Amino acid sequence: MIRITIIGSGNVAQHLIKAFSASNLVEIVQAFSRKKEALTHLLDSEKITTDFTALQEADLYIISVSDNAISEVSSQLPFENRLVVHTSGTTPIDVLDSKNRKGVFYPLQTFSKNKEVDFSVIPICLETQKSEDYIVLETAANSISNSVYPISSEQRKALHVAAVFVNNFTNHLYQIGHEICEEHQVPFEVLGPLIQETAEKIKTLNPADAQTGPAKRHDSVTTDAHMAYITNENQKNIYKILTQSIQNNGKKL
Amino acid sequence: MIRITIIGSGNVAQHLIKAFSASNLVEIVQAFSRKKEALTHLLDSEKITTDFTALQEADLYIISVSDNAISEVSSQLPFENRLVVHTSGTTPIDVLDSKNRKGVFYPLQTFSKNKEVDFSVIPICLETQKSEDYIVLETAANSISNSVYPISSEQRKALHVAAVFVNNFTNHLYQIGHEICEEHQVPFEVLGPLIQETAEKIKTLNPADAQTGPAKRHDSVTTDAHMAYITNENQKNIYKILTQSIQNNGKKL
Repeated sequence: MIRITIIGSGNVAQHLIKAFSASNLVEIVQAFSRKKEALTHLLDSEKITTDFTALQEADLYIISVSDNAISEVSSQLPFENRLVVHTSGTTPIDVLDSKNRKGVFYPLQTFSKNKEVDFSVIPICLETQKSEDYIVLETAANSISNSVYPISSEQRKALHVAAVFVNNFTNHLYQIGHEICEEHQVPFEVLGPLIQETAEKIKTLNPADAQTGPAKRHDSVTTDAHMAYITNENQKNIYKILTQSIQNNGKKL
Repeated sequence: MIRITIIGSGNVAQHLIKAFSASNLVEIVQAFSRKKEALTHLLDSEKITTDFTALQEADLYIISVSDNAISEVSSQLPFENRLVVHTSGTTPIDVLDSKNRKGVFYPLQTFSKNKEVDFSVIPICLETQKSEDYIVLETAANSISNSVYPISSEQRKALHVAAVFVNNFTNHLYQIGHEICEEHQVPFEVLGPLIQETAEKIKTLNPADAQTGPAKRHDSVTTDAHMAYITNENQKNIYKILTQSIQNNGKKL
């Protein structure tokens, strides 16, 4: 049984408390929050502390606070040589104070406070400096998720850039599609199943193999017609750049 | 009971034959195929014809052939004043020969020959020139799908451009994410749930409201770090253009 203390009361901290509470393989020792009320709906009051000096012994301390507070919080911990990890996708492991053993416990998903989360399908990316610490982190991660990966700080950087492309930029393309539909009085929901199918397909196909469309076919009659049809210069530019990128596929320009 | 004849034997034609065959609300009179064998696994042999002059009377003729063959096929039909539609997303209604009443029956989805399709969730976009013909098409479409929309040729053009953004271009962003992961030895599957969640979210949220990430937050520390991290000039250019587009959101440049 791994004994875990959560430090923080934000979205990720709360989702972690919920998930760990539901597991029989770990025990939540305490949670730290600047305001006790932030967590009383999730934990017994006596398990919530607002005072770093009241933190008891645990196998694992998970700091889940905003990225720029991680360093300071880790330096305020009143103990040494224990396993202390953060949950940030963009923060290197070494911002953690060196008085404790360092690690990263990064659940790769977007969390909203009011949306229930099925942690079992969320990939958790782990990093530690000592291999015996990895086993502790891995056990904790496996207790709530079926997808656990060892990911170094360097790999995490790549993962975050890739996530911007497949998540933030993809959503922006949805937005452009939405704008084009709105401009021409077409209900955007007509595109819903196509969007879901596009995402679904890459569960079984490499995205390069799943590529279809006029750009891929080098169908310049259609791509020229689309370019002429789009009036918004920004959309036109994105259409041009992405069409060229699909056509130059594989060639690193 | 609407009596339907399918002309063509490609992916869409075959999926339509399967879907209509499963419905009690329509009857497949015949199917036309240049090669009889192409359809014998789907229809009784005597219902398949290879000869236009053998086409019997039906309420609706659905031409499902490659875009550039629609016009010629429609002119070869040996009858007049019947309802003849095509299934193309990119072809105007008026390429159909004027001797018959024209329409469009466009299922908006990507079809693969070997993948089963649940037609009930596929949007079908309909267009006719006469309102009484619309009722026939609508009844046929409702017999296989729960999402049926009246979409004019002009709207269909917009829809196709929007579909390129949300389908073809999105898949290309998946491919870039895949390349970045590969380059840094990160398993792409780690991003799978995030990709699915990004697509899932817009079922309930307007994409503009669902936008997150460093570009949206104007977090230039992160976007600059990403730009410095990406070595592929093509990826860097796409990162820059899409980041700017997110930040200029709503301003038509």
